[in-house]
Amino acid sequence: MSGMTFDHSKKTDFVAIGRLCIDLNANEINRPMELTSTFTKYVGGSPANIAVGMARLGMRAGFVGKVADDQMGRFITGYLERCGIETSGVTTDRTGAVTGLAFTEIKSPAECSILMYRDNVADLKLRPEEVPEALIAGTKMLLISGTALAASPSREAVFLAIEYARRHGAAVAFDLDYRPYTWSTEAETAVYYNLAAEKCDIIVGTREEFDMMERFERNPERLDGITAAKWFNHAARIVVIKHGKDGSIAYTEDGASHRAVSYPANVVKTFGAGDSYAAGFLYGLMQGWDISRCMSFGSAAACIVISSHSCSEAMPSAEQVHDYIARCERGEITASQI
Amino acid sequence: MSGMTFDHSKKTDFVAIGRLCIDLNANEINRPMELTSTFTKYVGGSPANIAVGMARLGMRAGFVGKVADDQMGRFITGYLERCGIETSGVTTDRTGAVTGLAFTEIKSPAECSILMYRDNVADLKLRPEEVPEALIAGTKMLLISGTALAASPSREAVFLAIEYARRHGAAVAFDLDYRPYTWSTEAETAVYYNLAAEKCDIIVGTREEFDMMERFERNPERLDGITAAKWFNHAARIVVIKHGKDGSIAYTEDGASHRAVSYPANVVKTFGAGDSYAAGFLYGLMQGWDISRCMSFGSAAACIVISSHSCSEAMPSAEQVHDYIARCERGEITASQI
Amino acid sequence: MSGMTFDHSKKTDFVAIGRLCIDLNANEINRPMELTSTFTKYVGGSPANIAVGMARLGMRAGFVGKVADDQMGRFITGYLERCGIETSGVTTDRTGAVTGLAFTEIKSPAECSILMYRDNVADLKLRPEEVPEALIAGTKMLLISGTALAASPSREAVFLAIEYARRHGAAVAFDLDYRPYTWSTEAETAVYYNLAAEKCDIIVGTREEFDMMERFERNPERLDGITAAKWFNHAARIVVIKHGKDGSIAYTEDGASHRAVSYPANVVKTFGAGDSYAAGFLYGLMQGWDISRCMSFGSAAACIVISSHSCSEAMPSAEQVHDYIARCERGEITASQI
Amino acid sequence: MSGMTFDHSKKTDFVAIGRLCIDLNANEINRPMELTSTFTKYVGGSPANIAVGMARLGMRAGFVGKVADDQMGRFITGYLERCGIETSGVTTDRTGAVTGLAFTEIKSPAECSILMYRDNVADLKLRPEEVPEALIAGTKMLLISGTALAASPSREAVFLAIEYARRHGAAVAFDLDYRPYTWSTEAETAVYYNLAAEKCDIIVGTREEFDMMERFERNPERLDGITAAKWFNHAARIVVIKHGKDGSIAYTEDGASHRAVSYPANVVKTFGAGDSYAAGFLYGLMQGWDISRCMSFGSAAACIVISSHSCSEAMPSAEQVHDYIARCERGEITASQI
Repeated sequence: MSGMTFDHSKKTDFVAIGRLCIDLNANEINRPMELTSTFTKYVGGSPANIAVGMARLGMRAGFVGKVADDQMGRFITGYLERCGIETSGVTTDRTGAVTGLAFTEIKSPAECSILMYRDNVADLKLRPEEVPEALIAGTKMLLISGTALAASPSREAVFLAIEYARRHGAAVAFDLDYRPYTWSTEAETAVYYNLAAEKCDIIVGTREEFDMMERFERNPERLDGITAAKWFNHAARIVVIKHGKDGSIAYTEDGASHRAVSYPANVVKTFGAGDSYAAGFLYGLMQGWDISRCMSFGSAAACIVISSHSCSEAMPSAEQVHDYIARCERGEITASQI
Repeated sequence: MSGMTFDHSKKTDFVAIGRLCIDLNANEINRPMELTSTFTKYVGGSPANIAVGMARLGMRAGFVGKVADDQMGRFITGYLERCGIETSGVTTDRTGAVTGLAFTEIKSPAECSILMYRDNVADLKLRPEEVPEALIAGTKMLLISGTALAASPSREAVFLAIEYARRHGAAVAFDLDYRPYTWSTEAETAVYYNLAAEKCDIIVGTREEFDMMERFERNPERLDGITAAKWFNHAARIVVIKHGKDGSIAYTEDGASHRAVSYPANVVKTFGAGDSYAAGFLYGLMQGWDISRCMSFGSAAACIVISSHSCSEAMPSAEQVHDYIARCERGEITASQI
Repeated sequence: MSGMTFDHSKKTDFVAIGRLCIDLNANEINRPMELTSTFTKYVGGSPANIAVGMARLGMRAGFVGKVADDQMGRFITGYLERCGIETSGVTTDRTGAVTGLAFTEIKSPAECSILMYRDNVADLKLRPEEVPEALIAGTKMLLISGTALAASPSREAVFLAIEYARRHGAAVAFDLDYRPYTWSTEAETAVYYNLAAEKCDIIVGTREEFDMMERFERNPERLDGITAAKWFNHAARIVVIKHGKDGSIAYTEDGASHRAVSYPANVVKTFGAGDSYAAGFLYGLMQGWDISRCMSFGSAAACIVISSHSCSEAMPSAEQVHDYIARCERGEITASQI
Repeated sequence: MSGMTFDHSKKTDFVAIGRLCIDLNANEINRPMELTSTFTKYVGGSPANIAVGMARLGMRAGFVGKVADDQMGRFITGYLERCGIETSGVTTDRTGAVTGLAFTEIKSPAECSILMYRDNVADLKLRPEEVPEALIAGTKMLLISGTALAASPSREAVFLAIEYARRHGAAVAFDLDYRPYTWSTEAETAVYYNLAAEKCDIIVGTREEFDMMERFERNPERLDGITAAKWFNHAARIVVIKHGKDGSIAYTEDGASHRAVSYPANVVKTFGAGDSYAAGFLYGLMQGWDISRCMSFGSAAACIVISSHSCSEAMPSAEQVHDYIARCERGEITASQI
């Protein structure tokens, strides 16, 4: 058991707040973008992907965010709705902001890069007054994502959403999702990440992201134990620290640490691995599974996404994940393991 | 005869300065962009299209501009070079600017719109110090485009380029190309457009663009005659005023006005009509043709471009234009006329 | 007894962080500024005034802030040093920022206004990396002031200073000091004020300032009891709510409320009343006095300041305050009471 | 004779456009500003000083500019009106801009410096739409000042004012007044200064200012002759180039150059020398005097201003200037000559 419990009287399972953008994935892969000529459009952004993932897994999900007043914005809202996600918390910018874009380049399964358009983006224009207290009051879990803390007024909207979640007993999960290009300085990032993380029940990030947050502290050997203990002194119940190829470790309040089983995958690209993992892991927690099983389920979901061309569109159903695990266990999937 | 003569001792025919960007044309046409899913990438931007058009027509062309330090920027420079355009005047931004984007939506041949990304774009970062005096000194004609006047330091770079052109005897053509979204106010636009146009030999724009420039003057009936006379009091030799469906009229210093023959076309979209017309018209002037023939050649070039999916990529060779005119004259092309 | 205790092993009594600026007080009073012609220069800014007040009362004080690299900045640092305030935490801006200015206009003792210069001011350029952990570790009390939360990077510097204070056992006092003109929106203000106040031991502000902080909460009757209870659920030990002419009330964790004796004064202007009150009140707490005596001492200090032309320069010594109280008690001061 | 003639049917002699600000002159002189404590307030800004100077000399003067919506702004407008200057062209900012400030420091007569407040200043918010064509149409001379070209929308307002002046036959005088701190880059400055100067009848500046304008030209030996000839190829009739201690030289279209008699002065500070010189010189031109006499009259006016504590307030009447010259000629003023 994860130690986490959720308020089952609430009608919504999961609400994410933050970035909504467009992925433009090069159709011609295994070459630099200078040599690609066509792109396919998908809904993207880490919290959007996770929300789509949760909905695909059968959770009743909602979103709080802001879209541009243009074709891209309407495409995003329409897509979320087609996924069954509640969009009453998605407002439309009226100041002329644009939709964030991410052009993806896949030179090889291991060499993927993203060309971002993040100037004057609608998602960072979300204002505190636009955060719907009732939607958050009615959900079991709120997911926040670090990028939404990068600028005003989105940053204030996220802090208010956390306040509403705590006021009304929703668990708060924080996907660190640190993207340096949206921030002015590392010092600024560290300050706001800490202010947010202090109030969260579940914190998920890479070792490097936790290092960035410890910029004004002493943890010279970058020990997970010191990191996890810090957060258990605040509100945290679970801290997941990802060590790249060395796998992820989930720490719990009781002092235990947990690792996942890993699965093979036919990797097309690495984009979307973290988002599908997060969706799978949080889904598991909401099922009341033990932590290791949650992590394994997240890993299998990630394998499915990285074997496909898109992120949001490739998010699997629970049945697909269970089936993937079963096939791996039967030795039917034996390709390159990540 | 147009009355324009060019210095044939110069080795470059044509240099354009200004916007270099990317067109992302929806592959699925005749529907709103919310319902499109793939896009094809082309080099775009009005002066870029005209320069490509001139090169395709056989002119020795060059470009002065600035591209982002990313895959899009490298794609643009590479494309210009493949077209045979001299790119020593194209510098690379190092401040983190992005490449301007234009997503095109074709709802019907008559209903086309563009979704622009113009925040923090590299083309407007061109600095005066980066304008190569030698390249401009060595060209017969310099083309400037209104959008490059919209912001500093690009605006100053254009004024300096005009100064260099006049110092060294290059004719200056001004394609008004007024795009409201890049400007703060109409009053600001009017001031800089006038300061630039006063120094130009050839001015090409729509009636509405000339109206905008006359914001602080008296021409209540919007008479072409008053407009043209004003510019002949400055440096102008030819003033082309476009009246949409009523066709274009070219005014010359001698008081004459000229109209073009028009040709039928199978219109896919209207994007690129103005740029291909400009390339054809300026090409004609450089051949020493009379004004009406220049205009007709421009019209035929435009017909070819609007019958295709792209702009830059569809720019015709001189042979293609001559052939198109011949086929029209033989009655072989009879479709919808624009 | 106030219930507050301080770590007497620490060598510094008091460190303030935030605004350092210049007051330019019109020498000709009781007229609009259009009719004044000369101004006298003083060091100003709420936390600067309080630090000067504490030093004048005999406390070992220090300051963390940033000054412009000009004559005004050097004047400020020099003045603090002449007051005996430790300035190792005062850094100098190198980006061309200016010193904030406050031109004061005294139309009548009751009609005072301020004309502020707050664009590109040095005090808001203080960066987190410039906050000296050792200075804060060595002080009994840290004072923060709301204006320093108005913009980055000063806001982040203040949050880090609070973190250092808590890490090292310094009490944190928060003078709300809300100045609307430095903020973008009230929603933004509310969010950051709450994030800071949650971590403070002592919170001092007007009823209106607490209302602003409750923007996203329910306290329709604006009851002090609800307000105070909220903060006692966080870190607060003392909450002082000022009700203008109706006096101030200090609330303590034990559920008690406290009021001050008030004193008569010959009011010249109202500027500086709050800052001198804060200095006197905090001084009293550090002497271990009971809350009511602290409040009365603050009131008497305020009476002295508002009877003079300046703020910082008029901050009294402890002897002056005791003497003022004694004279009031003997009926020697009988003028207009505020 | 200067060769300049003015349209005597016009009812206004002189209109200046541009900066209106406040000088705060330290009352304690011959020391650094760190050691001064009081300041006296005056109207300042180069074109404001010149307009006051012209009014004091008996000219019917007007002003086109913008003031802040505060006590400083109202003080400025009131002062201009008390000087008899037409202020219908002075609008009030409504965006929260402030009045520019110049704190002056007089360490010695030869060591004077200025601490400027130029962020978000009202004078640079003047919009083209606010430039009154009728006022400019009715004046004999328009004075523009370089600082007003430093930012939008003031820059556009100045270009439009020049256009109105030329349309209606007003002479245009350009006081280069280059203040580096208001400009982004020297290249930008050079471009706009040239665009403006090309349309001016009278250009007055230091050798260094003309060098800055020739940044993209060839005049390696910095020869006045090359400089003057350039401007006579445009609209200029008189070009005055100041060589500091070596005196000023006025060049005229006929190829002649002119120098002034110089006078002794008891120098208090050097501020205001250029503005009083400009007022005296332009006044002389409007009297129809020969160039050398205009220059000498300007020099004497400057001597009077630099012998006093203020700039605008010290601007002399014509009688005072004539009297000063007479006393110098009688040997009654023998002090340090500048």
